[in-house]
Amino acid sequence: MRDPAPVTSPDDIPFRARLAAAARQEQFLTVVSREEASARFRAAVPHAALPAETVPLADALGRVLAGDIASPIDVPPFDRALVDGFAVRAADTQGAGAAAPRRLRLNHEILACGVAPSLSVDAGTATPIATGGVIPRGADAVVMVEQTEFFEDALAIDLVQAARPGQFIGYAGSDMAAGETVLRKGLRITAREIGMLAACGLAAVPVVRRPRVSVLSTGDELVPAGAPLPPGGLYDSNGPIVAASVTENGGEAVRLGIVRDDAVALSAALAQALAETDVVVLSGGTSKGAGDVSHRILRELGPPGILVHGVALKPGKPLCLAVADGKAIVVLPGFPTSAMFTFHDLVVPLIRALAGLPPREDEAVQAVLPQRVASELGRTEFVMAALTRTPEGLAALPVSKGSGAVTAFSQADGFFAVPAARSGVEAGETVSVTRLGAGLRPPDLILIGSHCVGLDHVVGLLAERGVRTRTLWVGSAGGLAALQRGECDLAALHLLDPETGRYNAPFLAEGFSLVPGWGRLQGVVFRPGDPLFDGGDARAAVAAAVARPDAVMVNRNVGSGTRALVDGLLGAKRPAGFWNQPRSHNAVAAAVAQGRADWGVAIATVARAYGLGFLPLTQERYDFAHAEIARDKPAVAAFLAVLAEAPTRAALRGLGFAMEAAP
Amino acid sequence: MRDPAPVTSPDDIPFRARLAAAARQEQFLTVVSREEASARFRAAVPHAALPAETVPLADALGRVLAGDIASPIDVPPFDRALVDGFAVRAADTQGAGAAAPRRLRLNHEILACGVAPSLSVDAGTATPIATGGVIPRGADAVVMVEQTEFFEDALAIDLVQAARPGQFIGYAGSDMAAGETVLRKGLRITAREIGMLAACGLAAVPVVRRPRVSVLSTGDELVPAGAPLPPGGLYDSNGPIVAASVTENGGEAVRLGIVRDDAVALSAALAQALAETDVVVLSGGTSKGAGDVSHRILRELGPPGILVHGVALKPGKPLCLAVADGKAIVVLPGFPTSAMFTFHDLVVPLIRALAGLPPREDEAVQAVLPQRVASELGRTEFVMAALTRTPEGLAALPVSKGSGAVTAFSQADGFFAVPAARSGVEAGETVSVTRLGAGLRPPDLILIGSHCVGLDHVVGLLAERGVRTRTLWVGSAGGLAALQRGECDLAALHLLDPETGRYNAPFLAEGFSLVPGWGRLQGVVFRPGDPLFDGGDARAAVAAAVARPDAVMVNRNVGSGTRALVDGLLGAKRPAGFWNQPRSHNAVAAAVAQGRADWGVAIATVARAYGLGFLPLTQERYDFAHAEIARDKPAVAAFLAVLAEAPTRAALRGLGFAMEAAP
Repeated sequence: MRDPAPVTSPDDIPFRARLAAAARQEQFLTVVSREEASARFRAAVPHAALPAETVPLADALGRVLAGDIASPIDVPPFDRALVDGFAVRAADTQGAGAAAPRRLRLNHEILACGVAPSLSVDAGTATPIATGGVIPRGADAVVMVEQTEFFEDALAIDLVQAARPGQFIGYAGSDMAAGETVLRKGLRITAREIGMLAACGLAAVPVVRRPRVSVLSTGDELVPAGAPLPPGGLYDSNGPIVAASVTENGGEAVRLGIVRDDAVALSAALAQALAETDVVVLSGGTSKGAGDVSHRILRELGPPGILVHGVALKPGKPLCLAVADGKAIVVLPGFPTSAMFTFHDLVVPLIRALAGLPPREDEAVQAVLPQRVASELGRTEFVMAALTRTPEGLAALPVSKGSGAVTAFSQADGFFAVPAARSGVEAGETVSVTRLGAGLRPPDLILIGSHCVGLDHVVGLLAERGVRTRTLWVGSAGGLAALQRGECDLAALHLLDPETGRYNAPFLAEGFSLVPGWGRLQGVVFRPGDPLFDGGDARAAVAAAVARPDAVMVNRNVGSGTRALVDGLLGAKRPAGFWNQPRSHNAVAAAVAQGRADWGVAIATVARAYGLGFLPLTQERYDFAHAEIARDKPAVAAFLAVLAEAPTRAALRGLGFAMEAAP
Repeated sequence: MRDPAPVTSPDDIPFRARLAAAARQEQFLTVVSREEASARFRAAVPHAALPAETVPLADALGRVLAGDIASPIDVPPFDRALVDGFAVRAADTQGAGAAAPRRLRLNHEILACGVAPSLSVDAGTATPIATGGVIPRGADAVVMVEQTEFFEDALAIDLVQAARPGQFIGYAGSDMAAGETVLRKGLRITAREIGMLAACGLAAVPVVRRPRVSVLSTGDELVPAGAPLPPGGLYDSNGPIVAASVTENGGEAVRLGIVRDDAVALSAALAQALAETDVVVLSGGTSKGAGDVSHRILRELGPPGILVHGVALKPGKPLCLAVADGKAIVVLPGFPTSAMFTFHDLVVPLIRALAGLPPREDEAVQAVLPQRVASELGRTEFVMAALTRTPEGLAALPVSKGSGAVTAFSQADGFFAVPAARSGVEAGETVSVTRLGAGLRPPDLILIGSHCVGLDHVVGLLAERGVRTRTLWVGSAGGLAALQRGECDLAALHLLDPETGRYNAPFLAEGFSLVPGWGRLQGVVFRPGDPLFDGGDARAAVAAAVARPDAVMVNRNVGSGTRALVDGLLGAKRPAGFWNQPRSHNAVAAAVAQGRADWGVAIATVARAYGLGFLPLTQERYDFAHAEIARDKPAVAAFLAVLAEAPTRAALRGLGFAMEAAP
């Protein structure tokens, strides 16, 4: 909500009041421990399977059996032949041999599958029978057609081998006996169980009703995917990710979309959700910021109402748990990682219990932490980690993108907890990493360092050849350090050595090799048409801009190659915007494109992507390093091969990168 | 097709011709190796992802990305506040401290989420901002509201701590940069990826089209679940299990139902399937038995037509692979286990390749085989196995229910192969067991031995308490042997010692204990109203029946307790049906109920379930044995506790079992 009134107007009163209200909201958070939050939630909301419903067998895949299943029939329903041949009396075949064949007259019926026998097998006779055919009365064995001689004219067969009683007969009920419990309550139905239920003749099965879970996103800033993004707007990712997670955990997501931070709209949506579904999950609306109204709505619910607002979890502190009409209402924090941790920690167990599913079996692995992770005393802190294999075993690399990142979950293999009683975990300590999903196959190639869109292209080519790469963008120096600790196969780097003026090679320790990548053109970026820069020389234009107090720059983080360039341009000057030091070319370009800054330094490819003007400064080298002994590792060899191929190099050139002559 | 003509009629000619035709069908099988079959199939049918289609994001869960996804925008789209507080210029805060607070005037706007800033943060000013709010021009840091003092009248704040440039700012593109490849082709979309795609604003994504797979079952004997079962009829289980497996492997099953063994009907169904779907899977119709027509239809297809008919696989030999219009047609064997092995071995890889999924990652474990498994030289033999934990490690117990069994797959944890070049695997050898599914949790309790419906009830009670039991019905003696080898926790047995006349206890070795189960009443079963048995004494009635040549009995397998009873009744007599020796009470009752035999011996509970008459003979003891050292194992203790409880005993009594006074 924009406040249109100028500072000096009498409308200062509502502005003051709103500021004061924002300050007071802090009081709503009464932080309890994770254990206390969970205990209150479980006490107030039954964590038990919903009642049964009956579904057709064809719709039962993935559902949970609501009761034991006893077979209503014998399977097979009758004694049957296990081979193609003849049903005989074993006693008639005793003493048969090559020298003394036994002749049996054929009864006048052929027992194909599905044919009910009409004739007995009397002494001295046999009846032709197909695999699966019903054993006729009198017969107690089947002889294979291959072990008989057929006399068409005499309608008889000769046997040269005695048959064992019961031979090649599958008895009624030997697979499932009538009345036998064949499947148990609580089982999740897979294809295997579908087959058993079908064989029993069951066309419908009792299954636990799926919990219906309302999913609402609240926030005036949110826009649904596909709509244009207004200034300050954000695409809603919590709604879709929560809905998909509900589905993955046996629930049925009812998507109620984005609701504005408006008490009337939110009350109406909540009433609808409570009337129509079993659980309500809102996301956003629990921070202390102005404009959040969901906690106010929840305070007006009947008892027990709000159970918890504030949990000693990081990320996830502003979580709110409430109950109305016996149904759980959960308000997740708005930031994606916070939302996902709290959802998995407290909501997933409820959904699975309602769905009749057992708790998710989180597979934990032990891994060594290569760097210290600090944590605040008094709250449980979850840290996302990527697992990599080192010569000494598994290492857990913290993936620290912040609780606002939606990518953290997909770049990590799992997470570990720093207990509330500790202020951190030291480098070299072993942590227990809870894996995010069973069956996550480790990557073939791990590449850590600096990001480049050219590298995206190369990794895509590798994927087409079946090589799966994990990339972690931690910057050049971080990549090099990870490589030297044995945590990755390749480091991507563009580090300028100020003493020699050379890129990358001066930083490599013994035992490591550099693979030439490509040159990237660095330059000054600006909005097209800005008279300060248009058409001039980069250095001259920057000097002019620095002299003007109304021109705002955007810098880069210390340690990046680009920052060294910026420092060279500025000397001792500290123009407006100097302290804005983001970590990527893209962030620089975005700041300029959106008018938050007027100029910065970034690579040409990125300038082009953002439609910015560009004045060239210098070429930098973006290269790859690997341990010499890893050169022949298949995935590394595949990377080097792809990089050397002419079509790859042509494509990179097309993206605007400077390729050396082929090595 | 029943042949109505009597043996002596002139219609013998068609009967003879049909017999001769059945004999000739054998020639159709030209058996090739598994490797050769796979090579021909891969050469003739492209095993590659189908073309892309675009689906809405809400329908993308579980689908496979058809191309790399580059983010079209920066995520976040702007520099934003990571906490609730005030956007400031870090330079303004330098030197602030408790003794020297810095005062900043508030700009007249509140930057809630979704609000585009209209005012710059000039020197000496600050703008209130919520978590997620857009950083205004001029600001390069955010200070937390908790670390400020707010002066409502002055519209100003005091800071007592300096702010670092960039503090609490999340930069544009720091999560996903515009143009950055964020997801790669071939990835299966989970909730995590849904979140990333939504955050990029993508409302629709390119995914690999799902292969449409026609599923037909052929056979005159087949009946769909839910329909009444005619004599000789069988419920179709292959159709449902194949359809469910297609779904599980990324395909879309198109169920064309049951087609009769009729060339016209089958041709029509096949033409429809080829026109509308990508792959055609038939089951049944490949055995050599009379009445199978599918191979005839396939021989009439244009080239290349039939690629393979007959593979050196056990089970699965009669598999048929064909191609028409560039589409694969697979005829699976009719028996369920054969159908499933061949489907998983040859069809699943095709479906996954068409769906763009990687090969299924079969997890293999090493386990010791406790008993010899024989195998035929010259063909690869697959053996289903249940895994159990022994003191020495994992053991693989073959689950040998025969290829006709639909339960084999669900009682097994996996399977191992006996190579074509070997005639078997010896006891004590280690085999590599391919697990049937990731995440199959090993059971808490393993119980092997003789089946009883009373035990079904007890196991159900355990399941309600969270104890998962695996039961394997191998008979009393087999259960006892498994217990002594350490392969199970409990053996269920009812073995009569003929010398002492006592049940079970005499068979136990030192170190094993017997837990009293219950008494089961054995008796003679017969169809109600049969004058031979109605109302008489069991022994007298059997004596009368044995004297009549038209009265057919059904026996039991040697080694079962019931067989000892039967032997006592018959003495040296061998009446008709003596050699029919099935392995279960249910099979005996089914034979009598269906008129294949007139009498047999079975327990009262089963007689009642089949609506049979019953003349009591004797009580037998059905007990449980365990190793003495295992008594305190939690799952064993839980079993013993449930068994001893009064409600359990009352329920078993209600089922007709004789319970001793509570121990």
